[in-house]
Amino acid sequence: MMATRIFLLGLLPLICYLALPSHASNLQDFCVANSQGLMSGQACKDPKLVEANDFFFSGLHLQGNTSNPLGSKVTPVNVAQVPGLYSLGISNVRIDYGPWGLNPPHTHPRATEILTVIEGTLSVGFVTSNPENRLVTKTLCKGDVFVFPVNLIHFQYNVGPTNAIAIAALNSENPGVITMANAIFGSNLPISSDVLAKAFQLDKNVVEYLQYKF
Amino acid sequence: MMATRIFLLGLLPLICYLALPSHASNLQDFCVANSQGLMSGQACKDPKLVEANDFFFSGLHLQGNTSNPLGSKVTPVNVAQVPGLYSLGISNVRIDYGPWGLNPPHTHPRATEILTVIEGTLSVGFVTSNPENRLVTKTLCKGDVFVFPVNLIHFQYNVGPTNAIAIAALNSENPGVITMANAIFGSNLPISSDVLAKAFQLDKNVVEYLQYKF
Amino acid sequence: MMATRIFLLGLLPLICYLALPSHASNLQDFCVANSQGLMSGQACKDPKLVEANDFFFSGLHLQGNTSNPLGSKVTPVNVAQVPGLYSLGISNVRIDYGPWGLNPPHTHPRATEILTVIEGTLSVGFVTSNPENRLVTKTLCKGDVFVFPVNLIHFQYNVGPTNAIAIAALNSENPGVITMANAIFGSNLPISSDVLAKAFQLDKNVVEYLQYKF
Amino acid sequence: MMATRIFLLGLLPLICYLALPSHASNLQDFCVANSQGLMSGQACKDPKLVEANDFFFSGLHLQGNTSNPLGSKVTPVNVAQVPGLYSLGISNVRIDYGPWGLNPPHTHPRATEILTVIEGTLSVGFVTSNPENRLVTKTLCKGDVFVFPVNLIHFQYNVGPTNAIAIAALNSENPGVITMANAIFGSNLPISSDVLAKAFQLDKNVVEYLQYKF
Amino acid sequence: MMATRIFLLGLLPLICYLALPSHASNLQDFCVANSQGLMSGQACKDPKLVEANDFFFSGLHLQGNTSNPLGSKVTPVNVAQVPGLYSLGISNVRIDYGPWGLNPPHTHPRATEILTVIEGTLSVGFVTSNPENRLVTKTLCKGDVFVFPVNLIHFQYNVGPTNAIAIAALNSENPGVITMANAIFGSNLPISSDVLAKAFQLDKNVVEYLQYKF
Amino acid sequence: MMATRIFLLGLLPLICYLALPSHASNLQDFCVANSQGLMSGQACKDPKLVEANDFFFSGLHLQGNTSNPLGSKVTPVNVAQVPGLYSLGISNVRIDYGPWGLNPPHTHPRATEILTVIEGTLSVGFVTSNPENRLVTKTLCKGDVFVFPVNLIHFQYNVGPTNAIAIAALNSENPGVITMANAIFGSNLPISSDVLAKAFQLDKNVVEYLQYKF
Repeated sequence: MMATRIFLLGLLPLICYLALPSHASNLQDFCVANSQGLMSGQACKDPKLVEANDFFFSGLHLQGNTSNPLGSKVTPVNVAQVPGLYSLGISNVRIDYGPWGLNPPHTHPRATEILTVIEGTLSVGFVTSNPENRLVTKTLCKGDVFVFPVNLIHFQYNVGPTNAIAIAALNSENPGVITMANAIFGSNLPISSDVLAKAFQLDKNVVEYLQYKF
Repeated sequence: MMATRIFLLGLLPLICYLALPSHASNLQDFCVANSQGLMSGQACKDPKLVEANDFFFSGLHLQGNTSNPLGSKVTPVNVAQVPGLYSLGISNVRIDYGPWGLNPPHTHPRATEILTVIEGTLSVGFVTSNPENRLVTKTLCKGDVFVFPVNLIHFQYNVGPTNAIAIAALNSENPGVITMANAIFGSNLPISSDVLAKAFQLDKNVVEYLQYKF
Repeated sequence: MMATRIFLLGLLPLICYLALPSHASNLQDFCVANSQGLMSGQACKDPKLVEANDFFFSGLHLQGNTSNPLGSKVTPVNVAQVPGLYSLGISNVRIDYGPWGLNPPHTHPRATEILTVIEGTLSVGFVTSNPENRLVTKTLCKGDVFVFPVNLIHFQYNVGPTNAIAIAALNSENPGVITMANAIFGSNLPISSDVLAKAFQLDKNVVEYLQYKF
Repeated sequence: MMATRIFLLGLLPLICYLALPSHASNLQDFCVANSQGLMSGQACKDPKLVEANDFFFSGLHLQGNTSNPLGSKVTPVNVAQVPGLYSLGISNVRIDYGPWGLNPPHTHPRATEILTVIEGTLSVGFVTSNPENRLVTKTLCKGDVFVFPVNLIHFQYNVGPTNAIAIAALNSENPGVITMANAIFGSNLPISSDVLAKAFQLDKNVVEYLQYKF
Repeated sequence: MMATRIFLLGLLPLICYLALPSHASNLQDFCVANSQGLMSGQACKDPKLVEANDFFFSGLHLQGNTSNPLGSKVTPVNVAQVPGLYSLGISNVRIDYGPWGLNPPHTHPRATEILTVIEGTLSVGFVTSNPENRLVTKTLCKGDVFVFPVNLIHFQYNVGPTNAIAIAALNSENPGVITMANAIFGSNLPISSDVLAKAFQLDKNVVEYLQYKF
Repeated sequence: MMATRIFLLGLLPLICYLALPSHASNLQDFCVANSQGLMSGQACKDPKLVEANDFFFSGLHLQGNTSNPLGSKVTPVNVAQVPGLYSLGISNVRIDYGPWGLNPPHTHPRATEILTVIEGTLSVGFVTSNPENRLVTKTLCKGDVFVFPVNLIHFQYNVGPTNAIAIAALNSENPGVITMANAIFGSNLPISSDVLAKAFQLDKNVVEYLQYKF
């Protein structure tokens, strides 16, 4: 997994500078992101040099390390790992959950997610927008599939003492993640504690304590 | 404002049942939502019966009532108020802020927002997605304009003892709002306090207190 | 699986008559296909009646029956099985392969596919468009992921004596399948044997024999 | 040609009331507009009843009647004539030009046009948007092709004493036409002559004379 | 205002050369146009260097100079002024109208407009496409909102002896403007006076006089 | 025709490397592909240098050479021939058919086609997707128009002893072609004969013979 992470960190800055055209595949069979050329105006790899490895990723059978406070680990397979996904509008992830592990409330700003439970039991849910803010929730077992509509806050919680595994697909090659706790209480610079105290009806001391932790 | 509200409540349920086609305007000059016909398969008002009032709203010069805990009030002008906006992909709002009033952290799942300050001084900001979670923030005065990119958490805070007014446009006729505090701590059903305590690293008692308040 | 099939046959005709708006989710949190209302102009289920089961499917851990000439079986999880997928632009499938089983050359007219090998070893490939018609191919093992770009002819072949399993996601809730052999030699009505003999440079007797078999 | 006209007049009102989803073809092979069912919520014809005639039009070899003040005639082949074009995003027209006949300055609000000269010689042009307002112009002969980008004002003028013929395709099944002279001077109700006199720096008497003629 | 204008003139040529991808925001939080890098293949500003000023504009409270023949002035806030709007699909403008000032008949080829009257009284209207060419018109007062659907010819006319002010939003970061009088009678090169005389049923002398003036 | 071919071969590689943004025209009047600048990050030709020839093609009245095994010839007019088509989403072709000439079963991965018969008699058809695989077929005469929906396998066959001519438009400036026989039996590398024998229920010797011929 370490290698994957390093690759991610290495490629993503290059991609982030580019105006990624989401519909390049409307005009070509594919457009493989060119790690050398992304900054030089040659957005797609020369199709003659494209190879099967541009559409390939290895290692999704390997367990993610869930030794962290949340007890979960996401292994991504998106355009940062598979340059052939560029402009094709899909990606996936493996999610490992330790006992009572949590993939905490978050949104994907650019994708709907379809999740399949490979092992274990998960309590999952999403919340609809204002004014209802309805929680749509279900306990999932092995072989169950659940859908999290684009932009809605959702989570998965391992409600058992054994590990759980899910594979989830998202309909963007770079779906993005906004983890609620991190974005609200852990932003860099911090949001004014006046704003957060008023928004969450929390004492300013509690807000500042949360900001200290995240 | 009362009349607008009632109209909103009356029309929105009808619209919500429909599969709103976002690009109907690609094939016609316009498609006015037909309040009588929305449920009967006649999605657009007969163009012969369309009139200027279908594209019209009155009252955006009127002050919104900010006597509420947050001290702010949003007056919407979207497809629920102006049926001619249906399928045209734009809407706007007036936002009133009492002294120290807050439009609390929220996202619009379907729109970027461009806000113009008409009166007063606002501290505004948005937070980028993982892993940076960077706060991009600015203090705005009368005549200043600021942009909140689609799906990012953002807020406006009246940093002064007088009223403030903004007009903001959004590039969807039904942009939606997800208020963070309400969706996380005020959902119906509540999200398990185990999940929220772990996600926000809060004591379960604090979570349950917050859930009680929202 | 039988139940799933029956549900598929029951719902699909209703959905097929509708002009499915692919971007309804641009204007609402979601739009659950309403099995009762699809024909009556009420395209989305009343959001108050939406429940978690609308976003749920059960049984993707169950082995598909590969006792057929091709030795493979696709179990779909798309809008016909999960009405909440309507307008959200994603779906998935489980594919079972018996020993030397083949998912034969086919296209998805409305989706790119990302496939993850759960068990076994697959030889996979896709062919680029004219004039290159280049085969991009790879042998995949457990935990490997491969991408098949939208509209390109592709296949998976179990190159071993044991069963293989894959889970694949597609970025359409109704991606469609065109199996080359069936569409060319098994259409109803048949394509003129003159046309096929000339196109494939086959003897007309061979063409007619193939048409008889498909 | 008379039959075509009548069909157009008969079908268009039905179609106009519908919220035509421009991307229905993203989710189905096709969606044939159902002339009986358009008003009843069954937007696509039952695919079992679809026939080749739904994708067919006859008569584009017939000369249009150019005995009118402009000396030109457009014969359309769009979704009003060919219901199978519904949601597929293309259409075409035959244009006949008498000697010195003019297809006057107009825009297509929803389509780019690619025109092929079948017979004769045409002077054609389009004007770019503000601030350049540049005329891009060319004289075309038999076999020449020219492109008019979406939304730009364009025209074709038969610069010769014989008939001319063109076939043009547009990338919308309902591209729409706004003829400048008619929309400006011939609208119903008329635009205030104060507005037009100021905009075109014309004497109000001239404006009112033009409004009388259109 | 002078500074804004110069910035507009300085940046626009750079932007115009680029193939602006309208949906870059589908794959990133945002893509700030990089004034130095636009020509060098680095389409988006390095996100680490993005700052609040990239999403900011100042001065929309300042009165535009209406001392011109039409008596109106448009102050734009689009991607030329606010590089952070790049790919986000929205912009706005302030419009000042002197007494009896006119924003003359024009179209926006890439945007619907929603206009809010801040001060004064405006007679506004738009004209539908062929064959109806119906004028949809309304007199607006302070606080009134009106919608001009994409691509339709529209205008605003100050029907009073005092100044009027409007703020309008458009759902494109570069909506474009085609002023009818300028594009038809003031193009560079001029459209043949034969064409215009026939199209508008004007004497060629009148056409040439108009072309002289524009 | 030779010149066209050479131009095609010369320009296409440049274009193929680029991430073609399909909606550049949403933000500009047009974006002419710059043959010199495509590799250097300047995707659009400087608009000041754009000329009418960028939107122009000559020679569609010339007969294509049908002296080949299939007896047909396609003359394309797409972005490779007309750089002004870049991002505008349309193109066309002339198709010549010798006696009994065949445009063999193929798909366009990015376009619906509308075909007009200029001379002769053609038997045409398309096949719907699984599970119906229905052949929708018609015999066309001079002046007839037929539509082939995007991604469906289709063909045209000259059912007569004289030449036939068609003009067809496609709603992509680079629609692509996948000829079934070439992609299946003529790919480079070849698809394993095991795969093809099983998929088409052909003897491996027949498969290898077909692969030898294509």
